[in-house]
Amino acid sequence: MSDPLRIGVAGLGTVGVGTVKLLRQNKTILSERCGREIIVTAVSARDPAKDRGISLSDCTWHSDAETLATDENVDVVVELIGGSDGIAKDLIEAALANGKHVVTANKALVAHHGCALAVTAENARLVLAYEAAVAGGIPIIKALREGMSANAIDRVYGILNGTCNYILTSMRETGKEFQMVLSEAQELGYAEADPAFDVDGIDAAHKLSILASLAFGCQVNFDAVYVEGIQQVSPLDIQFAAELGYRIKLLGITCRTTSGIEQRVHPCMVPLGAPIAHVEDVFNAVVVHGDHVGRTLYEGRGAGQGPTSSAVVADIADIASGRNTRTFGIQAGNLSKLQTVAMSERVGSYYARFTVIDRPGVLADIAAALRDHDVSMEAVLQRGRAPGESVSVVLTTHETREANMMATINTIDETKAVLEPTMMIRVERF
Amino acid sequence: MSDPLRIGVAGLGTVGVGTVKLLRQNKTILSERCGREIIVTAVSARDPAKDRGISLSDCTWHSDAETLATDENVDVVVELIGGSDGIAKDLIEAALANGKHVVTANKALVAHHGCALAVTAENARLVLAYEAAVAGGIPIIKALREGMSANAIDRVYGILNGTCNYILTSMRETGKEFQMVLSEAQELGYAEADPAFDVDGIDAAHKLSILASLAFGCQVNFDAVYVEGIQQVSPLDIQFAAELGYRIKLLGITCRTTSGIEQRVHPCMVPLGAPIAHVEDVFNAVVVHGDHVGRTLYEGRGAGQGPTSSAVVADIADIASGRNTRTFGIQAGNLSKLQTVAMSERVGSYYARFTVIDRPGVLADIAAALRDHDVSMEAVLQRGRAPGESVSVVLTTHETREANMMATINTIDETKAVLEPTMMIRVERF
Repeated sequence: MSDPLRIGVAGLGTVGVGTVKLLRQNKTILSERCGREIIVTAVSARDPAKDRGISLSDCTWHSDAETLATDENVDVVVELIGGSDGIAKDLIEAALANGKHVVTANKALVAHHGCALAVTAENARLVLAYEAAVAGGIPIIKALREGMSANAIDRVYGILNGTCNYILTSMRETGKEFQMVLSEAQELGYAEADPAFDVDGIDAAHKLSILASLAFGCQVNFDAVYVEGIQQVSPLDIQFAAELGYRIKLLGITCRTTSGIEQRVHPCMVPLGAPIAHVEDVFNAVVVHGDHVGRTLYEGRGAGQGPTSSAVVADIADIASGRNTRTFGIQAGNLSKLQTVAMSERVGSYYARFTVIDRPGVLADIAAALRDHDVSMEAVLQRGRAPGESVSVVLTTHETREANMMATINTIDETKAVLEPTMMIRVERF
Repeated sequence: MSDPLRIGVAGLGTVGVGTVKLLRQNKTILSERCGREIIVTAVSARDPAKDRGISLSDCTWHSDAETLATDENVDVVVELIGGSDGIAKDLIEAALANGKHVVTANKALVAHHGCALAVTAENARLVLAYEAAVAGGIPIIKALREGMSANAIDRVYGILNGTCNYILTSMRETGKEFQMVLSEAQELGYAEADPAFDVDGIDAAHKLSILASLAFGCQVNFDAVYVEGIQQVSPLDIQFAAELGYRIKLLGITCRTTSGIEQRVHPCMVPLGAPIAHVEDVFNAVVVHGDHVGRTLYEGRGAGQGPTSSAVVADIADIASGRNTRTFGIQAGNLSKLQTVAMSERVGSYYARFTVIDRPGVLADIAAALRDHDVSMEAVLQRGRAPGESVSVVLTTHETREANMMATINTIDETKAVLEPTMMIRVERF
């Protein structure tokens, strides 16, 4: 057997502690699988006195995370501090400069600085691994970068944020409003005290930009991701979706079109026949379409101590076993510039819910606006109430350009019969 | 860039031709991903004159497959001949003896001779790769062996045969009998002229025995797999399953119990809430339960030219990139002997359909037999007909030992009221 692989863990929160625990608990099978031992030799966190439920007496304690990078007894630095800049970035740069491999779970950092760091790592023949940064315990980076390596990728999409999926699932099951379900999710620990990062779609967008780079061999471009969160989704929309044969999911979608690469995160109506419609609660799932393999789907837990540690340690095991893959699939210096497609150019179907006064001629006005903008209606539902009261008119369209759909909605929203801004949700048929 | 990796393909059927095509079609992206070119330098098949729709003029033709193993211009032998013994096995042994890596799609061969060949390959520091042997285009070998490497595995199960899944899906959707749907599947090319290998569960059992070895670090033991096919499943059972909230799927299941490792392939009732219930048509899916990651699911096409070639070429790309993993996850010489658990020891729920004469006292007899064998009933359905005619009595049980359930059914089948052998299907709640 070779010498043990020596790990330095920076950040001892849930995932850091989970990683140390996992490496100890599954020590024997990991040694068998990697052909060498993996040992934690050093750690870094803010408070050395805090009880974390694990003994760290056999580890060197670094009160300054960056000094982990120069610890002679460390071969791999595991960055679990978080944040796209600051200490996390300084540590990773220092580690690579000092000839140490890096494993990170930090999606924000990879989304913002992944390409530059990849160039540094590859020039130094070091590994920069980040399986835990996307979809937690699902080995999607490995699947996309190695498992699908024979394929030209057409499209990748998925449920990339467990908090949002939990909220949407719970809203559907209970009929409750977003705010109420969010509060419950916070009590259960499924949502952060400040939930904006999750429910506004930013977290999913970080992950999507990484997947797009891997799929299409382009530089990670987080700023080019179109992002909409789930705050506007109402129980009414969820109910109409069910009646029309759909479920509402927050999806990250990236695909190649004739004009470039689409990158978008927004609520979607997905048909019940699509496997991703049945991915519920805190589970994540990613679908990868390859030119030869067709559709493949990967599902599992996207967060939490166990799943995230599983992904971190899988990266460590790859390093221990001498398996190395280019950070973004191809040489980082050769990644192309991503050619973004504007949202207005999206071609697809739409769901719209109009809140209007129930009086003669309203549906005719809506139908006229659709016709004027060359949008073809597929289905329409209207809930009858007393004449003169507000009513929901719901419709789905055939395929059309987003620009046309937005123009239609603007026209309709300007008519007097419309009482609230219209709710629009994109339909993805896959 | 390094020297090109030179491939020799043995067997030019659907997958062999697909592999050559894929390597040519995606030549550029493969070079980018692997850092070197991959070229087909030699091929072998029975009839050199046959038109296969591809030009092979730049390849050395070997009329005897085994001479591929000594071709100086071949680094990797790709075995796509098939069959657990004979030419395929001779070729692989010869290739390894001559210092060539081997990629195969041959599940029967890996199930029967995988361990011995793995020892040979590892002693010679060569790769023996077989991603295409299990679940076609799904990178399940990589997921299990590398992606899940941090985990002790508790359980692996899946839909491993696309033909059976297509037949069961079609039976449910159309209400037709097995034989009729099988004929249609044969016409569509989804089932072989001799379908026994698929519909009797043998193909799924080959794959399951390989997954069990990877999951539990034991020697592949195909002979220890309990196998039942789908020929006995009737439209009536599929309909009752739906009424009870289940779907019938042919699953391969392997799990660790206190007594050893279970390995079994048989029709199962799976609840509609389980993601695997929604894997339909020719799709395959595998669920892996790890101690830290929890449940992960992998879905995709399990057969066909594109998906299978995708898996074959992914293995070739790993070799081209210098990525190497032990054939069965740990050193082949260290694989333990599998300790089999007898089917009679299975603990779980059961569905039983009794065909009885509709007369007073029949349900009482059934209930008494259950009680006498300590089996607790969960639900019961009876279809009323005219008294004196045959009727189906369907029940599901709470958890019980298989031995008790079989004894119950034997007792009931001996009573005069029973007109046909009772149909029993295991319920898997997961």
